[in-house]
Amino acid sequence: MGLNSERIGRDNLSFILRRVHVVGPQSRSDLTSLLGLNRTTIGSLVRQLESRSLVEEQQMSSSGLPGRPSHVVRVRSDAHLVLALEIQVDSMAVGLFGLGGSLVRSRRIASDPREVGPDETIAQLLGAAREFITDDDRDRIVGVGVGVVGLVRSVDGVVRLGPNLGWTDVPLGAMVRSGLGLDVNVRVGNEADLGGLAEYLRGAARGIDDAIYVSGEVGLGGGIIVKGQLLAGAHGFAGEIGHAVVNPTGMRCACGATGCWETEVGEQALLRAAGITADGNPRRAVNQILEAAASGQPVARAAVEHVGRWLGIGLSSFVNAFNPGVVVFGGLFGRLEPLVEGIVWEELERRALLACRENLAIRPGRYGIDAALYGAAELAFEPLLADPTLAPARGPQSAGSSGRRKTSVVANR
Amino acid sequence: MGLNSERIGRDNLSFILRRVHVVGPQSRSDLTSLLGLNRTTIGSLVRQLESRSLVEEQQMSSSGLPGRPSHVVRVRSDAHLVLALEIQVDSMAVGLFGLGGSLVRSRRIASDPREVGPDETIAQLLGAAREFITDDDRDRIVGVGVGVVGLVRSVDGVVRLGPNLGWTDVPLGAMVRSGLGLDVNVRVGNEADLGGLAEYLRGAARGIDDAIYVSGEVGLGGGIIVKGQLLAGAHGFAGEIGHAVVNPTGMRCACGATGCWETEVGEQALLRAAGITADGNPRRAVNQILEAAASGQPVARAAVEHVGRWLGIGLSSFVNAFNPGVVVFGGLFGRLEPLVEGIVWEELERRALLACRENLAIRPGRYGIDAALYGAAELAFEPLLADPTLAPARGPQSAGSSGRRKTSVVANR
Repeated sequence: MGLNSERIGRDNLSFILRRVHVVGPQSRSDLTSLLGLNRTTIGSLVRQLESRSLVEEQQMSSSGLPGRPSHVVRVRSDAHLVLALEIQVDSMAVGLFGLGGSLVRSRRIASDPREVGPDETIAQLLGAAREFITDDDRDRIVGVGVGVVGLVRSVDGVVRLGPNLGWTDVPLGAMVRSGLGLDVNVRVGNEADLGGLAEYLRGAARGIDDAIYVSGEVGLGGGIIVKGQLLAGAHGFAGEIGHAVVNPTGMRCACGATGCWETEVGEQALLRAAGITADGNPRRAVNQILEAAASGQPVARAAVEHVGRWLGIGLSSFVNAFNPGVVVFGGLFGRLEPLVEGIVWEELERRALLACRENLAIRPGRYGIDAALYGAAELAFEPLLADPTLAPARGPQSAGSSGRRKTSVVANR
Repeated sequence: MGLNSERIGRDNLSFILRRVHVVGPQSRSDLTSLLGLNRTTIGSLVRQLESRSLVEEQQMSSSGLPGRPSHVVRVRSDAHLVLALEIQVDSMAVGLFGLGGSLVRSRRIASDPREVGPDETIAQLLGAAREFITDDDRDRIVGVGVGVVGLVRSVDGVVRLGPNLGWTDVPLGAMVRSGLGLDVNVRVGNEADLGGLAEYLRGAARGIDDAIYVSGEVGLGGGIIVKGQLLAGAHGFAGEIGHAVVNPTGMRCACGATGCWETEVGEQALLRAAGITADGNPRRAVNQILEAAASGQPVARAAVEHVGRWLGIGLSSFVNAFNPGVVVFGGLFGRLEPLVEGIVWEELERRALLACRENLAIRPGRYGIDAALYGAAELAFEPLLADPTLAPARGPQSAGSSGRRKTSVVANR
């Protein structure tokens, strides 16, 4: 794309808003040098963002140093909110977030989507959301983000396949859009993609532009950051590393193939390695195995080591393919990490090329089970961050946010 | 990055030059609408590029249609050249290219780097290059690109590891820089990365921004395009998909690991599957197997099918991970493609998720054995494309390019 003046103005607003949203408060002089613009232009851009209730400016209290007092620009976390929704295999969550990624409040409830099917699951989620948001919230919500354990077509939010939910071609985006009655943009993303996004923007991969998020769920979800952006692929389905072939003569996977990585790792694999048949509450059984392994019980230790070894084997392929700066373990793997760190590295040293792994860090995620909820909030903020002029401007006389109109502008990309 | 006016001017020049370099001739009105700038500004930008001998403008011959005659902007392929060098396992090549990717001439010679070691190999390459370029070429060369079958640290062009060359930590970039005596920028890249770049920019993946190039050599090289850019990873070593684990209990790989993808595909694997011990000329043996397989000879067919099946198995992992729009088979795999297309798809249908493969195309490469040489030329042009002001401007009175200074400005990124 070329650059004309209208687009440049919008891009500069976007740059500033994204910077204070992701990095935190910035002094005007920081912004001046980052953008290579003069102080007057920066001042004008900041005032435009202020007039849309997106940022606020504070004069720094005197530091005792000479020179002009500096202004610090920070997000207003109260004026514009997003609603984040999430569907996992055994729970669902709703959350409300302000600019800067600040959680207003969230709620998680148990669910059984495989039992009740997609229509009832989505109805439960929408019911929980409607109960969760107040009339005051409603007026401030500028976008909705939804995370789901499945392959999502980003353009319309259809879940093409959720192997562990039993879903095929579920129009989740459209159902949320019509069911919520909010006149705002709704975006849907894959659970692990959104977990990876959250860990990259504010969590364990923060500041590392090439990162792999590997989340242990029933199976294994992957969210991959390339040059600071989620890897989408040609049609938005990238990141399905749980279905990498690691053991071609191995076990049958829920996807229909044989020897997928997730047949050897993830909750199901851990239970199987421990000789436990999944009963009514597999997550409780997983917890018991983790506790027993931590206290040295041999069968539990062996099961954990089986998963750790295969985690390292499969990871080697993607360390060689992506040369990431960090691998973040989420979900079950985040909890496993202290138990399997050694064995994972043993396999990486055996199988990943030195150049590809020598500066690699492996870390547990910051957000645990809520990673995708935080990521869904980021997804929901994205249209506003890309074009801050979507937020309505108010006149200089109106101090509050009461006069704002809703934004219903952005097409889901 | 923010946007100031100096950078915007440079970015607009870069946009136009890159467009005519990659896409081909553009009318002024195309550029006007692409850039969203007015005709006067476009005219001024084009004149700046003309003054640097980068483009030339032609008035289109009257089409009989009403309206102003349109000006067409095209690259000048004669004024600025790049030198491309390449080191494979059994040959090396030199080439001279003009803007627009046009080949001036190239030469490939047999070599045996494993036999003679890195110093002698590089000395041979430099000797061939010095013999190849004339004094007239020398004055017009603005950059050098080098492709090599190994893991390259992009910042300084050190080959960290060339498993199939037997190289470790060879300062190829510095040796080419000092040995050529050209006061220009030298960039080094991985063979398969550069092959992928060439096939993306002008070959079988042209116009498809998410693509995987899989090249059959002694082993398997990968070059991955994400959103129109080569995947580099945190330190430039990404794309080593030949060392993905596909068969953990399989064969020992040249990298030291067990069961790497390239142990089951590539020339060595094909020879082994055919029961042939690599003698003095493995490439001739490979050709014999391909011919025998094409004519239905059972052992040769079985060997080709073995490679095809494992090609499909390993590829499934990366189709799931990257959701590419196209997979391009280069090198040996380009020649195998007609023989193994069915079997590759059979494995993909078994192992890759429907959503990840349903819009996928698989194609043989356009450039065959020369793909990396074409890619090295693109690597060499990159600094100039990113900042066309690196080419010296001449006064309007000087029509030729004789007055140009050399550019020695750009640090290797």
